[in-house]
Amino acid sequence: MLQGMRDDEELGRITLAQVAQEAGVSISTVSKVLNGRRDVAAPTRIKVERVLDESAYRRTTRVAREAPLIELVFHELESVWALELIRGVEKVAKANGASVVLTESGTRQAPGPEWIEGVLQRRPRGVVLVFSSLPAEVKQQLRSRSIPFVVIDPAGDPDPDVPSVGSANWNGGLAATRHLVQLGHRRIGIITGPEDMLCSLARLDGYRSALSMAGLPADPELVRYGDFHVEGGRGRAAELLDLDDPPTAIFAGSDLQALGVLEAARLRELRVPHDLSVVGYDDVPLAQWSSPALTTVHQPLRQMAEGAAQMLMRLRSEESEEPVVTRLELATSLVVRQSTAECRRHGR
Amino acid sequence: MLQGMRDDEELGRITLAQVAQEAGVSISTVSKVLNGRRDVAAPTRIKVERVLDESAYRRTTRVAREAPLIELVFHELESVWALELIRGVEKVAKANGASVVLTESGTRQAPGPEWIEGVLQRRPRGVVLVFSSLPAEVKQQLRSRSIPFVVIDPAGDPDPDVPSVGSANWNGGLAATRHLVQLGHRRIGIITGPEDMLCSLARLDGYRSALSMAGLPADPELVRYGDFHVEGGRGRAAELLDLDDPPTAIFAGSDLQALGVLEAARLRELRVPHDLSVVGYDDVPLAQWSSPALTTVHQPLRQMAEGAAQMLMRLRSEESEEPVVTRLELATSLVVRQSTAECRRHGR
Repeated sequence: MLQGMRDDEELGRITLAQVAQEAGVSISTVSKVLNGRRDVAAPTRIKVERVLDESAYRRTTRVAREAPLIELVFHELESVWALELIRGVEKVAKANGASVVLTESGTRQAPGPEWIEGVLQRRPRGVVLVFSSLPAEVKQQLRSRSIPFVVIDPAGDPDPDVPSVGSANWNGGLAATRHLVQLGHRRIGIITGPEDMLCSLARLDGYRSALSMAGLPADPELVRYGDFHVEGGRGRAAELLDLDDPPTAIFAGSDLQALGVLEAARLRELRVPHDLSVVGYDDVPLAQWSSPALTTVHQPLRQMAEGAAQMLMRLRSEESEEPVVTRLELATSLVVRQSTAECRRHGR
Repeated sequence: MLQGMRDDEELGRITLAQVAQEAGVSISTVSKVLNGRRDVAAPTRIKVERVLDESAYRRTTRVAREAPLIELVFHELESVWALELIRGVEKVAKANGASVVLTESGTRQAPGPEWIEGVLQRRPRGVVLVFSSLPAEVKQQLRSRSIPFVVIDPAGDPDPDVPSVGSANWNGGLAATRHLVQLGHRRIGIITGPEDMLCSLARLDGYRSALSMAGLPADPELVRYGDFHVEGGRGRAAELLDLDDPPTAIFAGSDLQALGVLEAARLRELRVPHDLSVVGYDDVPLAQWSSPALTTVHQPLRQMAEGAAQMLMRLRSEESEEPVVTRLELATSLVVRQSTAECRRHGR
């Protein structure tokens, strides 16, 4: 209610009243919709949203009302990535005199209504979202209020309609596998991520291309799908290492999966890298703390977050009424540490 | 300026004018001080702060102005603890309909003026600070505006004047060492944290007490001070393992230091736990991902953060003008995993 009153004060009753009249609802209903409250029937909300969307309302309101906040919304704060992404957004926010509001959307799939309500009430300068699929309704709610948003999408499955930042997964898979080929490995296993994530498939394709360019066969027995977590890495590595003709090297698809591979090797008294080479993916901080330190593909998570926050700032300053659709894809690079070595065993 | 104008509107000119008159400054100067702006000379600011502090101003202003935000301020977002603490505060914030604003104070020692300025402008429900030493000026600024604050203090060096949450470091050191004694170890090394941190000393004293209770001598040669990071663990473990009569077990003082011990052992072809038992401290997520998974002392970081945020909520609802000084110390507990085993070697 307080927020609704401030609308009136700051924007003048006329604009709000015009929206109400055009939508055929009361001023207080328009105010409720603007503030993202849920006690408005869906058809009414849709009608008001459409009028807001079509009206000049949003252009006149932005600068006067926004708070020096950047919203950062995660599905879950569990990932080893989260802190790197937070630090990237925090850096750009600080440089722009803004603070970061952190929200966990709390649902495993698409974010629920709670977080968007908070965002609409706070009126931040912009929103950085760490997940791929954004419901159409959420996009419209943000757009009608001129709140720019950018998706950080490490899964590599961007919505063409939404500005997003990702990284080069195919190239990462290629670089990891090439490195192992150059060390003389011929039987190279891969544990990529879940089969339904595009980034898993891109890394796998990079692996296959590196083998093909080296004239090596791609043995389907050596390809496994994990879960990007330690447990998946351990289980799939156990399967690979127990093959009749086991691999001499494993590209583990993520650093957590690589830790699982190290554990599977330890339980079989295989020394890494002497008996088995292991390459991770991500280069999160624990990659260098691991024993041995992981050779891995560096995914520039902090820079991806900085890029997303900077894209927000650019979107804000755009004069255009339509958001500028942008896709930023940052390069990945191989970091060679202690978990890979020359191959000492060839075939059976 | 906008914020200053809102002061006038919401509180009425009279209250602000009274403060100005009593301090002998202009209303706009009072407004600047209230908003934490730095373009006010220090003596003037101190004078206004004192009047604010003594006046009934704060009691009349709190409820009307606060935003549904909890501020969480870190020195640096680098620690492996940070995410656990964020998640704890986030949980309590969500349950109270509030969002978390995350700020990195950006200085290694005491926090600088930038963050307090932002806090005073945003007027959150409260502030959770992750560091021990809070300047007197900051305390006064928060108190005069009735913004409650609680310190999460894993270093174990609480300011008696400030509500804080810590954990039982001495008991943690005792439990870690007792576990090794029970496994038959007689030469037990310790790598505690920096010598100037109370939590390092408390853990070391717990270690000494456990040895003493078991009738074992405390060999000063087996006591080392680290840095709580991987590098310190690696370096100090190398010193211990290269002794003429090396330890059969090391209490590593932190999980990161324990990872360093694992690496020092690997480089000497010592198998953990077969040839060397290792106990960490903290139980951050990577402790269970390590190979072997770390036996460690669980420091309930998430619950400490929840406790701090709940304490904030309690402080808010207090009628008392003076903040309630509180110290919450949560229990630590030993988590036995794969990095410890029965001692197989006894002395020379």
